[in-house]
Amino acid sequence: MAKIKKQPRPKAQTPKGFQDYFGADVTARAEMLNTIAGVYHRYGFDALETSAVETVEALGKFLPDVDRPNEGVFAWEEDNDWLALRYDLTAPLARVAAQYRNDLPFPYRRYAMGPVWRNEKPGPGRFRQFYQCDADTVGSGSVAADAEICAMLSDTLEAVGIDRGDYVIRVINRKVLNGVLEVAGLAGDDEHTRGIVLRAIDKVDRLGAEGVRLLLGEGREDQSGDYTKGAGLNQPQIEKIMGFVDAHSEVTNKLAREASNAEEEGDDARADQLTYARYSMDGAFTNREDRVRFGKYRSIWNRRVLDHLRQLVGDSDVGFQGVEELAQIFELLDRGGYSDVRLAIDPSVVRGLGYYTGPVYEAELTFEIKDDKGRPRNFGSVAGGGRYDDLVKRFTGQEVPATGVSIGVDRLLAALRAKGRLDTTAQGPVVVTVMDRDRMSDYQTMVAELRNAGIRAEVYLGNPKNFGNQLKYADKRASPVAIIAGSDEFDKGIVQIKDLILGAEIAKNATLEEWKDRPSQYEVPRDQMIAKVREILDGQG
Amino acid sequence: MAKIKKQPRPKAQTPKGFQDYFGADVTARAEMLNTIAGVYHRYGFDALETSAVETVEALGKFLPDVDRPNEGVFAWEEDNDWLALRYDLTAPLARVAAQYRNDLPFPYRRYAMGPVWRNEKPGPGRFRQFYQCDADTVGSGSVAADAEICAMLSDTLEAVGIDRGDYVIRVINRKVLNGVLEVAGLAGDDEHTRGIVLRAIDKVDRLGAEGVRLLLGEGREDQSGDYTKGAGLNQPQIEKIMGFVDAHSEVTNKLAREASNAEEEGDDARADQLTYARYSMDGAFTNREDRVRFGKYRSIWNRRVLDHLRQLVGDSDVGFQGVEELAQIFELLDRGGYSDVRLAIDPSVVRGLGYYTGPVYEAELTFEIKDDKGRPRNFGSVAGGGRYDDLVKRFTGQEVPATGVSIGVDRLLAALRAKGRLDTTAQGPVVVTVMDRDRMSDYQTMVAELRNAGIRAEVYLGNPKNFGNQLKYADKRASPVAIIAGSDEFDKGIVQIKDLILGAEIAKNATLEEWKDRPSQYEVPRDQMIAKVREILDGQG
Repeated sequence: MAKIKKQPRPKAQTPKGFQDYFGADVTARAEMLNTIAGVYHRYGFDALETSAVETVEALGKFLPDVDRPNEGVFAWEEDNDWLALRYDLTAPLARVAAQYRNDLPFPYRRYAMGPVWRNEKPGPGRFRQFYQCDADTVGSGSVAADAEICAMLSDTLEAVGIDRGDYVIRVINRKVLNGVLEVAGLAGDDEHTRGIVLRAIDKVDRLGAEGVRLLLGEGREDQSGDYTKGAGLNQPQIEKIMGFVDAHSEVTNKLAREASNAEEEGDDARADQLTYARYSMDGAFTNREDRVRFGKYRSIWNRRVLDHLRQLVGDSDVGFQGVEELAQIFELLDRGGYSDVRLAIDPSVVRGLGYYTGPVYEAELTFEIKDDKGRPRNFGSVAGGGRYDDLVKRFTGQEVPATGVSIGVDRLLAALRAKGRLDTTAQGPVVVTVMDRDRMSDYQTMVAELRNAGIRAEVYLGNPKNFGNQLKYADKRASPVAIIAGSDEFDKGIVQIKDLILGAEIAKNATLEEWKDRPSQYEVPRDQMIAKVREILDGQG
Repeated sequence: MAKIKKQPRPKAQTPKGFQDYFGADVTARAEMLNTIAGVYHRYGFDALETSAVETVEALGKFLPDVDRPNEGVFAWEEDNDWLALRYDLTAPLARVAAQYRNDLPFPYRRYAMGPVWRNEKPGPGRFRQFYQCDADTVGSGSVAADAEICAMLSDTLEAVGIDRGDYVIRVINRKVLNGVLEVAGLAGDDEHTRGIVLRAIDKVDRLGAEGVRLLLGEGREDQSGDYTKGAGLNQPQIEKIMGFVDAHSEVTNKLAREASNAEEEGDDARADQLTYARYSMDGAFTNREDRVRFGKYRSIWNRRVLDHLRQLVGDSDVGFQGVEELAQIFELLDRGGYSDVRLAIDPSVVRGLGYYTGPVYEAELTFEIKDDKGRPRNFGSVAGGGRYDDLVKRFTGQEVPATGVSIGVDRLLAALRAKGRLDTTAQGPVVVTVMDRDRMSDYQTMVAELRNAGIRAEVYLGNPKNFGNQLKYADKRASPVAIIAGSDEFDKGIVQIKDLILGAEIAKNATLEEWKDRPSQYEVPRDQMIAKVREILDGQG
């Protein structure tokens, strides 16, 4: 080998915006994806795994809010071809649906899971590689396909450990918004104004209803003093659109008025129903059991929203069609038993309404968690999707209807962690320590026995000279048990078994009377090693 | 939205050298990786998942046989940083071991699985993205770490479905080769000659022993007439090195001679043992049961190889150390019960001897498969690894001993497929057909019932007008069963259940008498749908 000049040492660092995952974080995600795949499979969806790399040509410019081509993606030139890392799992699906259009069964139900890459400025909690887990149905224009995905999303969340009552699938339809825009006189050629309106609506989560109202009108000054010019709509137009954006409040208020009327008329049962229907959407039930119990009143809410939307869209054809589609989805899910606490027809799902062409849905977690500063906040959205009809058309010229959902895997994992539903305690191995270097094959025999008994185990492979280092190692490995055997033990045919969890507790609570008589180390005959280890592990539960 | 100019349609194509995986191919791999992870975990290895992207600086120039930096990898410049897709899982491990050296437990046992990328000319069966599945122990210089990985590799192969007797773990040690080079007078400064020798040895699989012999001497003319100049060694040097490269033949011949001597001396039992020992390595037992039964004679072979190597390295210190390490590995595996048909000390593992610094191991499948042209051939290697001690040193300056194995996931899958051990039959869903578009919620109820009973099921979501298309779809989906219900059936409270597998068989064998009385369609009361479907599925099993 040629001699090389002395060079400065390379930095051992993850590239900016990328992350390493260790141990239980890796296995917990793998288990979750496995569970999700099981549900998707049962629903008839087939696995698809495309490569991480696509041609830039095939990916196209699909990322929202991005102007330059290739902006937002990692791309490079290779033999006159531009290649790029996929930024989502939908663009590769579109390519596959076009490429294999003569071989795939249509409608094509497929699921895909894996990392995607975004060339964005990294920030706290914002990574340039993250997991997505998608299910889509390509080639069906039926709203039954949308309803199916909502039901599947619900089943999926429960399968991974989000209990009923702790989440809600919100559904709306882009066509209803189109209808509202139409009756507000905004369906014409003025794409500029419509653009401002759509962007304003998209900001409701951040600015609230009042902020959106200002952006629909003259404009809005933010806290820093910056002024955003509004769409300049007149008051009736604004009211129409706010009737959609803020439908939630309007239906809530209407239910409250009706309940108080019913009460005045002495119809307490009806007043209660209407109140429960309102509460079922307003987070009034702070514990999950109540949310589930009163969930049956949610269908009153859903029907009211449909009525409200029907009124809003007036005689707009597309609006009417949109409400009818929503009503069908509601009907299908109701028949399937999903129209309880699990489902809400709710225009407050506005995320990505600019992207989708029909039904839009979103899974939101409804329980509170504590943020970094200990303040309670809602966990928010963990999955979203909807219908998009022009994805395959780019390739073939043919319009192919499609609908699908994407689960934010890392957010869902964070949610499960927050709920204490994720087993993140590292399951450390039993460590067989090395007292006598020449007995290595005896120690290996011990670990082999332990493993064959289904117990995770390893022999200490570092320098055995300093026994303290071996116990420190066992501690770092979160080992539940250490096995100790030197010449003495081998001569007597015994082993020492140390309960490291109990040992640590005793060390911490050394003054407590109750620990006094509980030893943390046991001497047992060699042939009882497995039984004793198992007994200790069972006791640690 | 701004209007865009009409552009030519993008091509719907996987980039050159990349591949899409569908259905059972995806799930079979996921299952296999899951099984492997289970074994690794039981051995105390912890999961690590690094990102696909690394800095070029951290990756370094580790790909063998590559001269230009970045050659062989996909790399691009990003804000003055060069980033690249990882080309294996070892380089990221080195980076991690250096980056987290104060936090990780050492010895650090880690496993990793996922795709890696190579920027190489794609060819038949050669892809630019493929899976690897690695396990490494960083920070232990003990050969017990090497022995452990060999045992784990063996357990892993059996866990995924490669039966004992169908594979062998071959082990050798780079230090033995160094010893041989030393006694051949090639340990000095002549790196050029040593380079030619190492490259010649590396080609034994392709050129055979005779080809290597020529390359060690004057040189060799290949079939195309091209001449490769040799290392120019003298005959005694060549014999020394061939004694290592071709140790297999020499030990085989020696065993044969001894057996015939024993026979002449009337010691038939001994003659048999020696013959079985030889047969156990020479593929003489064509069925697996025999290979396992006679596997116990393998330890004679292994001890003979150790004797042979001990002679070869003469008084070379490094050579002696190498043989002693091999003997220890043999001893440890023997005590663990692995030194039967599973283990072979065998210098014919020369793959990557230039890369590794100590023990080198390889898992080879020993059963025959048929190639594309129907000719029998050995399946060959599915995993390999060894000890490398300079990986972390690049970053920290400190030498950290490490040893590990990489399983070629796709090759192993191909092997399982060739053995018929992979369930590649697509498990199609039960398809509920749509006779009456307005009954969609009834059909949805049916699939929900089926799914809740654990049966994979879906409703047909395409245009239901042409019923033939629905059955074609079911066929493409490899559906085992179709459910059919129109107004008639709903009125009578029944469903039609079509056994599609039996139906297809009847269609194929319409003349056979035995099918005559076996209907492939059943009419059952609605509430017996699940029971009948399950009965049919069980019958198809």
